[in-house]
Amino acid sequence: MEKEDILSNGRKIIQDPDCFMYGIDAVLLSHFVAKEVHKGDKVIDLGTGNGIIPLLLADKSENLSITGLEIQSRLCDMAGRSLVLNGLEDKIKIINGDLRKVSELFPKHSFNVVISNPPYMPLTVGRQNEKDQKALARHEILANLKDICSAADYLLHSHGRFFMIHRPSRLAEIICCLKEYKLEAKRLRLILPFEGEEPNLLLIEARKDAGSGLKNEAPLIIRKRNKAGDLSYTEEVLKIYSEL
Amino acid sequence: MEKEDILSNGRKIIQDPDCFMYGIDAVLLSHFVAKEVHKGDKVIDLGTGNGIIPLLLADKSENLSITGLEIQSRLCDMAGRSLVLNGLEDKIKIINGDLRKVSELFPKHSFNVVISNPPYMPLTVGRQNEKDQKALARHEILANLKDICSAADYLLHSHGRFFMIHRPSRLAEIICCLKEYKLEAKRLRLILPFEGEEPNLLLIEARKDAGSGLKNEAPLIIRKRNKAGDLSYTEEVLKIYSEL
Repeated sequence: MEKEDILSNGRKIIQDPDCFMYGIDAVLLSHFVAKEVHKGDKVIDLGTGNGIIPLLLADKSENLSITGLEIQSRLCDMAGRSLVLNGLEDKIKIINGDLRKVSELFPKHSFNVVISNPPYMPLTVGRQNEKDQKALARHEILANLKDICSAADYLLHSHGRFFMIHRPSRLAEIICCLKEYKLEAKRLRLILPFEGEEPNLLLIEARKDAGSGLKNEAPLIIRKRNKAGDLSYTEEVLKIYSEL
Repeated sequence: MEKEDILSNGRKIIQDPDCFMYGIDAVLLSHFVAKEVHKGDKVIDLGTGNGIIPLLLADKSENLSITGLEIQSRLCDMAGRSLVLNGLEDKIKIINGDLRKVSELFPKHSFNVVISNPPYMPLTVGRQNEKDQKALARHEILANLKDICSAADYLLHSHGRFFMIHRPSRLAEIICCLKEYKLEAKRLRLILPFEGEEPNLLLIEARKDAGSGLKNEAPLIIRKRNKAGDLSYTEEVLKIYSEL
């Protein structure tokens, strides 16, 4: 059943627990991108779901033009209605289409920022159901890493920037796949569920046609346990939510 | 002026502040490797300096055969004398040679473990002096990343393991260069000087001819400030020193 939620930036979003609810991943990725969008940027979010990332970024700079591309028509419909709720139809466009066919949808090199919160898990034969909307967001059923890097390469002009959140277990694949598509990894941040634990997410920024040299940021720690033993977000995560 | 130091494992090492003193990097790399060497392994350390890594690993498993390759004859001489001091001439061989010419020195695929604590800094034209022994250890004057990966590829048999410490700024280059030489990055650990700071070192393990999938370990934090405001190593670093 659909419901309307309010984001930390005051914008409203339509969600549905049965098919798509945005998670902390979208928030962390939006924050990672937010300082890097500038006046007049043309931004595209590949696999935008219910439009969470465009909605979080809409107010981050002047004259942004943001496109959300989503293959599932049900999610496009939700995202489109969220735009109307927020009066953002001029700033954000939602397009129902397949990121494997960007060349049929957009002119080459027509964006300077590409964002993606893609499915993290490789396709294991016979395990996933193409009709399962949640599985489509988690597994590489309709688009894999190569499809996403290829789309980013097609869409970005030279020195355009690509931002993605993904699993650390796929870091080597990600870096090499980016390079294959002339996208050089320039900034990396590992995300740890707790201090002293292994990272379970990573944020990465790549730049098209750039030289080598990767800035590794201090790892981001999501949760801490307070003196009473209760779990809470760290100061930095609270700050990320408050700044969006 | 040369001096004789005692390592945490009780072994003795000859050092010289004017040309080569081992650092924490060699200790961290040896510890990263130590649990991964097994009975009978044939190990080679590319650019062994004064032989610190072979000396730290000598007692880590039975029947290890360790080779230290070093281009500077002065350092080979020091390393050779350290072997005699420790009675390790049967277990460790020091060879004075160029890692760019491993094919003239060793049979192909004759090792199952390759280790390197290489020069971290790319060569910037005209800045470094080939006669400066310290510069040779820091800058890619006599061997670069590609030379090292190429040597590891030549020396390792299939599924052999390669271990290296390096700078995080070069992570993307490292991962792609490894892949170019059929070495798949399998384990990564970022090293932070302090909690909450950017990493300044990384430990990486690659396996020859392996499939993708990278284990990211919890970052290692080197120093903390105690309540009195003094700096000290963290518990984990003290444990690393005590275990070697």
